[in-house]
Amino acid sequence: MTTLPTSVTTVSPGHYLQFASDNTSGICPEAMQAFMAANSGFAASYGNDDATRLACDRIREVFEADAEVFFVFNGTAANSIALASLCQSYQAVICSDTAHVETDECGAPEFFSNGSKLLSAPHRHGKLTSAGVLEVITRRTDVHYPRPKVLTLTQSTEMGSVYQKGEISGISRIAQEHGLKVHMDGARFANAVAALKVAPADITWRAGVDVLCFGGTKMGLPIGEAIVFFDRKLGEEFSYRCKQAGQLASKMRYLSAPWLAMLTDGTWLRHAAHANAMAHRLSERIAGIAGAELLLPTEVNGVFVNLPEPAIARLKALGWTFYTFIGGGARFMCSWATTEEAVDHLADDLERVLAG
Amino acid sequence: MTTLPTSVTTVSPGHYLQFASDNTSGICPEAMQAFMAANSGFAASYGNDDATRLACDRIREVFEADAEVFFVFNGTAANSIALASLCQSYQAVICSDTAHVETDECGAPEFFSNGSKLLSAPHRHGKLTSAGVLEVITRRTDVHYPRPKVLTLTQSTEMGSVYQKGEISGISRIAQEHGLKVHMDGARFANAVAALKVAPADITWRAGVDVLCFGGTKMGLPIGEAIVFFDRKLGEEFSYRCKQAGQLASKMRYLSAPWLAMLTDGTWLRHAAHANAMAHRLSERIAGIAGAELLLPTEVNGVFVNLPEPAIARLKALGWTFYTFIGGGARFMCSWATTEEAVDHLADDLERVLAG
Amino acid sequence: MTTLPTSVTTVSPGHYLQFASDNTSGICPEAMQAFMAANSGFAASYGNDDATRLACDRIREVFEADAEVFFVFNGTAANSIALASLCQSYQAVICSDTAHVETDECGAPEFFSNGSKLLSAPHRHGKLTSAGVLEVITRRTDVHYPRPKVLTLTQSTEMGSVYQKGEISGISRIAQEHGLKVHMDGARFANAVAALKVAPADITWRAGVDVLCFGGTKMGLPIGEAIVFFDRKLGEEFSYRCKQAGQLASKMRYLSAPWLAMLTDGTWLRHAAHANAMAHRLSERIAGIAGAELLLPTEVNGVFVNLPEPAIARLKALGWTFYTFIGGGARFMCSWATTEEAVDHLADDLERVLAG
Amino acid sequence: MTTLPTSVTTVSPGHYLQFASDNTSGICPEAMQAFMAANSGFAASYGNDDATRLACDRIREVFEADAEVFFVFNGTAANSIALASLCQSYQAVICSDTAHVETDECGAPEFFSNGSKLLSAPHRHGKLTSAGVLEVITRRTDVHYPRPKVLTLTQSTEMGSVYQKGEISGISRIAQEHGLKVHMDGARFANAVAALKVAPADITWRAGVDVLCFGGTKMGLPIGEAIVFFDRKLGEEFSYRCKQAGQLASKMRYLSAPWLAMLTDGTWLRHAAHANAMAHRLSERIAGIAGAELLLPTEVNGVFVNLPEPAIARLKALGWTFYTFIGGGARFMCSWATTEEAVDHLADDLERVLAG
Repeated sequence: MTTLPTSVTTVSPGHYLQFASDNTSGICPEAMQAFMAANSGFAASYGNDDATRLACDRIREVFEADAEVFFVFNGTAANSIALASLCQSYQAVICSDTAHVETDECGAPEFFSNGSKLLSAPHRHGKLTSAGVLEVITRRTDVHYPRPKVLTLTQSTEMGSVYQKGEISGISRIAQEHGLKVHMDGARFANAVAALKVAPADITWRAGVDVLCFGGTKMGLPIGEAIVFFDRKLGEEFSYRCKQAGQLASKMRYLSAPWLAMLTDGTWLRHAAHANAMAHRLSERIAGIAGAELLLPTEVNGVFVNLPEPAIARLKALGWTFYTFIGGGARFMCSWATTEEAVDHLADDLERVLAG
Repeated sequence: MTTLPTSVTTVSPGHYLQFASDNTSGICPEAMQAFMAANSGFAASYGNDDATRLACDRIREVFEADAEVFFVFNGTAANSIALASLCQSYQAVICSDTAHVETDECGAPEFFSNGSKLLSAPHRHGKLTSAGVLEVITRRTDVHYPRPKVLTLTQSTEMGSVYQKGEISGISRIAQEHGLKVHMDGARFANAVAALKVAPADITWRAGVDVLCFGGTKMGLPIGEAIVFFDRKLGEEFSYRCKQAGQLASKMRYLSAPWLAMLTDGTWLRHAAHANAMAHRLSERIAGIAGAELLLPTEVNGVFVNLPEPAIARLKALGWTFYTFIGGGARFMCSWATTEEAVDHLADDLERVLAG
Repeated sequence: MTTLPTSVTTVSPGHYLQFASDNTSGICPEAMQAFMAANSGFAASYGNDDATRLACDRIREVFEADAEVFFVFNGTAANSIALASLCQSYQAVICSDTAHVETDECGAPEFFSNGSKLLSAPHRHGKLTSAGVLEVITRRTDVHYPRPKVLTLTQSTEMGSVYQKGEISGISRIAQEHGLKVHMDGARFANAVAALKVAPADITWRAGVDVLCFGGTKMGLPIGEAIVFFDRKLGEEFSYRCKQAGQLASKMRYLSAPWLAMLTDGTWLRHAAHANAMAHRLSERIAGIAGAELLLPTEVNGVFVNLPEPAIARLKALGWTFYTFIGGGARFMCSWATTEEAVDHLADDLERVLAG
Repeated sequence: MTTLPTSVTTVSPGHYLQFASDNTSGICPEAMQAFMAANSGFAASYGNDDATRLACDRIREVFEADAEVFFVFNGTAANSIALASLCQSYQAVICSDTAHVETDECGAPEFFSNGSKLLSAPHRHGKLTSAGVLEVITRRTDVHYPRPKVLTLTQSTEMGSVYQKGEISGISRIAQEHGLKVHMDGARFANAVAALKVAPADITWRAGVDVLCFGGTKMGLPIGEAIVFFDRKLGEEFSYRCKQAGQLASKMRYLSAPWLAMLTDGTWLRHAAHANAMAHRLSERIAGIAGAELLLPTEVNGVFVNLPEPAIARLKALGWTFYTFIGGGARFMCSWATTEEAVDHLADDLERVLAG
């Protein structure tokens, strides 16, 4: 076994999880402040409180749309019950074969929909292509194969890329022409908006998206995602679905109040921009390190690097945590809480272990 | 329409929801403190953090049992996925016909189990009886009727009563003799323990309970319930079930850390005892008011009263909120946050509107 | 143990199951003839064959309606997937508490709908009442209780009664006014039409029924029920549902061809009228026997009798099979195959054992 | 558009569906005879009849095993509920990416299991490989990915190939070592046994198969498949699952009696051997035709040929029906009912259109 270079500094416990995922970060100060402020006296339960009403209104303002809004506990549920509401069990959902709903939800979409099949389409850097989507939609029409009824795309994607406005509207048009609804998994929607510098409406309903699962947790909230139905009819009776699916919080104010704070004064975009900037900082450092190769362009808050196995092992021995992929890839995720010092420290260590 | 007596004092907004449900209360100070303390730096996600490990250990200590423990978001989910893990879709769950899983979950148990039927048994003050349970178990044995496989009882019950230790063990014995597992809906478990002054083990696994859904929200937490499998084999692979069912929190520390605080130095029981005491205070006052009739004995934190419809209407007009039942009943729930002043104020108003 | 009177004649094996259920009968000659005729050469599978096309057309003629028709394997599936197609998992189905879907399907409706709750309403001789239905529909409107979305009634009922045309339209009107769809479980629909001597349309779509599960098996077919959507929109994509639910026969002609024969020249009604007549014959005999008491009026092909336990035991010892109920009731079912001799034989034996 | 050569003979209606699928054939004489014989008098329903008892016994004899046997309506259901009985919703089923359960069941396995994901593994001529299976089993172990719990293989495969005894035991060993159960989709099991000339036990339980879905329809029955649990414990309570899933026939004798006939005096294998022989006859003819290329070896009753698109169009114009694949492939299926004349006729026509 390789011994580590003695010169490598050891990381403090506070740092070691910094790049594993954006969900290892805590609650950002603004959300925490709102959470504490919400803890005042009694409030109506199940979302009939003022904080929830105001947070829903704020989301409608941010999206410039009279949308139906629901707060649920996590992304697994948000995406799964939103998809289930858009199709029947004998219909199918088209997704990228890198989509989180396909690769990391332990069958949750199939569970909540009672059997809707996910049909995976090819991707480029994690993004669906019009040609790929069209092929899946038109592949079969017989009764032995589930009819595609929903298309889901992830913005920003699981591979750290971002759909341009025109890419979304292009794919959505194909979906609509064939009677499909368009769902967006926005676990990292904030990072996409911050990167693209567009109005949220431009990459959602104006581009043909029917439902957005707007991620809160990775953005800095303790718990909770918002499901935004731009077409109110699609959200009719959705509160019953939330209830039955175990996603109706009794003390809803603790989910919604932090949302209100995040969407005030651009807090969400400021944090997302910071996370993106940290990824770019890391990316730029890595571009200059011999032996490390960027696998994908850095568009938002994730950096995907090809590293030799021994380098990965040494980094891990130093206490750094990050996801790795079969074949040598590593993923470093940045969040609102990632510091420049940590980025530089990681880059320094990376340089040393590769030089080693 | 009846005019209100002018002498009745108006309630402040802080009070008006005080008796609607124990989930209109906020987060108790100890839980809030722990929540804030948990927000320090990065932590491993999905429950692989220290707070979660310690909270699980603490629950094992409290129950004097090497149990498997899982934290989930709410009671609907906790009960539904716990029940689903104990039976197949073609098997049945026996419950009281007043059980929350039967009356107030919008079909969640049937949804998560993919069709397990709830078979309701008669109750006395919300409590199942041995005779009633036995009748349902032995009613049918043919393939056209689902085989009872789980018995669920609520402690304390939806009608404000408490099962004595011997009642639980008596019913559990019948269940076990017929091959059923025993599940306890403990949304208000703390109130029962505080009322009975027993070791938690005595009214759970020592009395034949296999799985407890231990309620946190009504006890003073922001979010979250604990599922406690006293038989570890029953909890095998349950983490996969949580994941698929949208109940695996990524930032788990914010669910678990408050649990640790609540179960330290008897905080949970102190708060529960307070809630119970407030209910008794109210109950005693009501006993002396002409025109109000206690419908059920007050054993924990709920007071059930028979009131004339006009009195109910006047109380509501004064801003008091509480649940009512067909036929004239009203339910007043107390929590850790209920104050003596509020109880007295409510009782005074009640006296006035009945005198009115 | 009671010894049997020596004078009682023993029944031949051919008789002993005659009154257990109308599904212990075989295939009637006309259906058998059609089945054999269908077995000629090759035929397109999955319902794309001539026999199926013709059978669907024939059903449309019989009902004087441009209905969508699907043939499935059995009644459990027919009712369950029809109901599932009419509601979402978080909605409810109102049924009589004697309904087969509630009492004898081992949770199939909940399974196929992924959790739709059955809400049982009170009945009179197995028939729903307008008042009872209205009470269930308007009972609750909160999100914790599933919204009623379908009403199902059984024609003829599980208790041998028949809804009059006006009863159906009365109940349907209430359902429609509250946004519910109306489903009819017609496992014994033929017996009802034969008894009422009405046009099938008059007690289905003209009376507000949206979907009929038209029973074939009990009528004399080997296998198979027809699902008839009077509103074609409700049947859209239903073939996908059949496929996914394991109810799309590959050699469909063997299900459909016998239907065509049954619905030709009034065969179905002739057989149903015979079954009804046999029940009346038995009923009339029983009315004259001391110690036997008709529990319900005999309106179609079932006879419900109150008998002392020893008489039941003796009849069973003689080889007669029939269903019994807690409290002493017995059910004798007649079918197309029931003979006058068997009826008389049974009545004679009944008289003897009661004379005991 | 190409005009057809005038010399091509036109096919009679009796022939035109001959090669579309083995389920376009009718009922073979032996099964028909048994079906008619079963139609004698009354019989106990739901499988409690003599024919069903005898047919189950006969299956046990054929497999030399004390198996649990259930008759259900079709293959979609047989495979789906068998798979559902072997795993939980959060577990996965490994199958070939050409498996019928993956490609042609409209999501039925996911529906009946309430969400179990199918994980497809690579294949060689439709057959799983040990290496491919092992890779899928060991791919992931985290909670975000469903744990493989069942392996399903199709014998004979959807691509007309046959697993050798050693191939099955090799793959089964890997499955067992990792805690997976082994399921065999035997829609064309008879063709495999006839081709391999082995004892049925040798390619099922002796080779590690836990459950076989033994196909009846394609073999010559009107309706019905047998589910054979070689491990009786796995079949416990399966009758409840059948009932709830709409797969319990009331007049079971009509499903089971034909099975008894088929499995008597080697009828099933004689018919399967005939189907195989017809495929070989066609295959040999095609091997000698310029412009047609066998895509796969002909091991059982299917012939897979690469044909130019115009040739396919001409054949179809002549009335021949068969399945085609993207890229020019055609599938011709033979059955017990395929005649030498039809094979020769097809081959002649094929020769002509290719020469054309």
